[in-house]
Amino acid sequence: MARNAKAEKATAETLATKQREISIAEFFTKNRHLLGFDSPRRALLTTVKEGVDNSLDACEEAGILPDVKVEIHPIDGSDDRFRVVIEDNGPGIVPKQIPNIFAKLLYGSKFHRLKMSRGQQGIGISAAGMYGQLTTGRPICITSRPSPAKPAHYCELVLDTQKNTPRILVEQQVDWNSHTGTRVVIDLEAKYQRGRQSVEEYLLQTSIANPHVQISYLPPDSPQVIFPRICQEMPPDPREIKPHPYGIELGTLLKMASSTKARNLKGFLHEEFSRVSDRVAAEICEKAGLSPTMRPSHIDREAAEKILKAVKLVKINNPPTDCVCPIGEALVEASIRKMLGAEFYTAVTRSPSVYRGNPFLVEAGLAWGGKELDADKPARVVRLANRVPLLHQQGACVITKAITATSWKGYGLQQPAGSLPVGPVLILVHVASVWVPFTSESKEAIAHYPEIVKEIRLALQECGRRLGLHLRRKKRVAEEDRKRSYIEKYIPHIGIALKEILTLSDSQEEKVVATLTDMLERSRKG
Amino acid sequence: MARNAKAEKATAETLATKQREISIAEFFTKNRHLLGFDSPRRALLTTVKEGVDNSLDACEEAGILPDVKVEIHPIDGSDDRFRVVIEDNGPGIVPKQIPNIFAKLLYGSKFHRLKMSRGQQGIGISAAGMYGQLTTGRPICITSRPSPAKPAHYCELVLDTQKNTPRILVEQQVDWNSHTGTRVVIDLEAKYQRGRQSVEEYLLQTSIANPHVQISYLPPDSPQVIFPRICQEMPPDPREIKPHPYGIELGTLLKMASSTKARNLKGFLHEEFSRVSDRVAAEICEKAGLSPTMRPSHIDREAAEKILKAVKLVKINNPPTDCVCPIGEALVEASIRKMLGAEFYTAVTRSPSVYRGNPFLVEAGLAWGGKELDADKPARVVRLANRVPLLHQQGACVITKAITATSWKGYGLQQPAGSLPVGPVLILVHVASVWVPFTSESKEAIAHYPEIVKEIRLALQECGRRLGLHLRRKKRVAEEDRKRSYIEKYIPHIGIALKEILTLSDSQEEKVVATLTDMLERSRKG
Repeated sequence: MARNAKAEKATAETLATKQREISIAEFFTKNRHLLGFDSPRRALLTTVKEGVDNSLDACEEAGILPDVKVEIHPIDGSDDRFRVVIEDNGPGIVPKQIPNIFAKLLYGSKFHRLKMSRGQQGIGISAAGMYGQLTTGRPICITSRPSPAKPAHYCELVLDTQKNTPRILVEQQVDWNSHTGTRVVIDLEAKYQRGRQSVEEYLLQTSIANPHVQISYLPPDSPQVIFPRICQEMPPDPREIKPHPYGIELGTLLKMASSTKARNLKGFLHEEFSRVSDRVAAEICEKAGLSPTMRPSHIDREAAEKILKAVKLVKINNPPTDCVCPIGEALVEASIRKMLGAEFYTAVTRSPSVYRGNPFLVEAGLAWGGKELDADKPARVVRLANRVPLLHQQGACVITKAITATSWKGYGLQQPAGSLPVGPVLILVHVASVWVPFTSESKEAIAHYPEIVKEIRLALQECGRRLGLHLRRKKRVAEEDRKRSYIEKYIPHIGIALKEILTLSDSQEEKVVATLTDMLERSRKG
Repeated sequence: MARNAKAEKATAETLATKQREISIAEFFTKNRHLLGFDSPRRALLTTVKEGVDNSLDACEEAGILPDVKVEIHPIDGSDDRFRVVIEDNGPGIVPKQIPNIFAKLLYGSKFHRLKMSRGQQGIGISAAGMYGQLTTGRPICITSRPSPAKPAHYCELVLDTQKNTPRILVEQQVDWNSHTGTRVVIDLEAKYQRGRQSVEEYLLQTSIANPHVQISYLPPDSPQVIFPRICQEMPPDPREIKPHPYGIELGTLLKMASSTKARNLKGFLHEEFSRVSDRVAAEICEKAGLSPTMRPSHIDREAAEKILKAVKLVKINNPPTDCVCPIGEALVEASIRKMLGAEFYTAVTRSPSVYRGNPFLVEAGLAWGGKELDADKPARVVRLANRVPLLHQQGACVITKAITATSWKGYGLQQPAGSLPVGPVLILVHVASVWVPFTSESKEAIAHYPEIVKEIRLALQECGRRLGLHLRRKKRVAEEDRKRSYIEKYIPHIGIALKEILTLSDSQEEKVVATLTDMLERSRKG
């Protein structure tokens, strides 16, 4: 065995002295790009996004039509430090929860459930606060009022990254003119810039995908803008569901069995899973060769394997469709229309499907033509996940993959091998799910699950077919126009020639021309 | 304020009851695609990769030329469950560290230091074990022997996902015929498949990027393969460094100041940072208007801001170059030669640079032509990070971005807008750093830091220029050949014509032809 002679080489013992636990906050401080803080410009967008997503979720859960205020102020006139303010009219937060929600990573209400919502990880807003603290040394400041009957609560928090715990610097009751709601203030190093991946674009797309939301926005360099509420109705409240037996894994099954309150196997299957009726539960027990009265705590690895095999043999309905709420074909199409003036629009909403036991649903919209879309450039892509616009990491996203994997040539668009189609086209795709599998904690791209690719492609193909029809019709009309102009151009000459040869009168000539025009017109249409 | 009348709507109080802490293991169980376990096929590759990367790091730290054994066995003849075995001749692991290293996420020796290594997060191998446990219910099994003087230690571990702690099922001393080393066995649900993103391809590329490594591989369906050691010398051991003052952030500076053992500001700057001499430290203190004898614990936000501003005004040398070790131009070129038969090869190693205070270095290699590279397809890309091949998420990687952002038309390749160049070309890029910023915990793509994009582009442009020279020379030679064949073709006819007109003898004709050929040949070269 060749060994390097140097004295300082490591051994198992010297290596052991260096082994240490890593706090999740330390991990994300070093890996901040995983959370969307890799550049000052993106940091600004991510901070606004985390705040607004939380506000919209809270308002919708409380059944309140959201009014969200976003402000970006330069700090001391600087162009690399900003104060971001996000304020909502939501249900507010009870004081004792505020520190954990805003200054502890991996803490929240949305992780341990299956319900369609914007937030899901319990990381975002604390990460934004942590980034602010890292770059400016300043705390995150929260004002919240859960009830008009009580005064508002104000506190300033920092996150102890070594322990991933909140530290309260200031805590007091304050006057606030809102009935209920929450206001978050974060100071951070950032860069303000307009354009494709800007706060403006995010708020615009948010307003388009959420017509029930009113957003007022004060940029650092110009007057307030309002993105008005278009629709006075709340979207349907998506239902929380239990996991579906298809796609459940052995380890998860064992863990669920050990923590269930059900008394027997049949009850466990019926109560803890989606779409498992008494009859289906009995059938699973039978196919697994296990007693329906078996205690769930007695389920060991072998029993769990038998159950999983049996599940595959039993026909179980797809998860209920009301757990994922689409924007809807009409509103998707209306959204694109609002976004730009094109020549052709279409939209498709698929019915829900399942990946790894999680219901999800895909919608697609397409616009073609018009002056705002560039004929020589790759398609413009709008990606939405649970109504949240995704502005970064387009290349990593399953939506991009599905678009490039679709063959657009058959629908009348050019497409270089392995690339987006080229032409004056905008493609919008919305993926809604009780658990969107993002490629990173910054939630800017959706991971490549084959079931999701398939559903997106089906939606795109339907849009593509409709576009193809439109383009073929357009081509036919153009062809007809060409023929018509041809006829119109030559018939008078024939008239003149015949007049000369046959010495016709002017009226006779006119009649010949009219007859010929009529005849050819009819033959062209035939 | 519009409120939905439904009774079950959430309030701050009902929302508060649902708020909970989320364990990092629960988080990654649900988000397993972040760790590279989104499909059974990728799960197999990720498991092998995490094991092999750990083995190579351990061997190199101990100065041992690595001998790594990889085996994949079908479990009970099944084609969706495999046993993965990874065994090395490294320094072994002391028994009491084994449970935390293999069954606790975010635990390791490589996170809290700045040193170039394959592993860095303290997640990988525990995640592979956790995935095995989730899909097969079976523990991860470790045998390790830190010293030939002692028997080997064996244990079986599971990870308690709710607490992120290891649970030991079996622990005992065993006989083992290795002097020192570690053997890891993981049973998991997986899919075995050859091709571009396979275990074979990963091991092949690993062997190419690490010529000092010997790998023996037993696939599930065929006999053992050996990837032999080419080079008997260990690569240089990269030096561990301190953070560089450029790129340090306020929060980090405050944290370092609060935990330093230095007695005063000047000593703190000198001891805790890279490239800060006594003189430079004194200059920073002076420019910051702070006393060099100030206690580090007295550094508050204002003082920290002053220090950071001062740092920007002081010229500080780049980090030492021996903390990032390139493969080297000669070996990169040799690696590509070994990989495929092409017509033209080149390689470039850049000198180290810095992003966010972290030194890094870029190497690029390029091959053109030959039968193995397809002339009509996009370039084949080989991506390496700290000598580890990256096989997934090409679209998300800064390397791909830098390649597409480089204009290859000037170097003689076709390139559709915003795409990879098209042609018979292979492009290899290696990014080496004390901290590679990956886009996700699965470490398959590098994040888009502008400094890294820039260095990759510079390396690619140099390769491109050399390719361009080659292709232009090739074109010139082809042009000459064309002219030569032209001359060769027509001169004899002129000879025959002259012979007929002037009634020359055969020898006269030959002489005329020779003279003309010589003359034209000289004029062509002139």
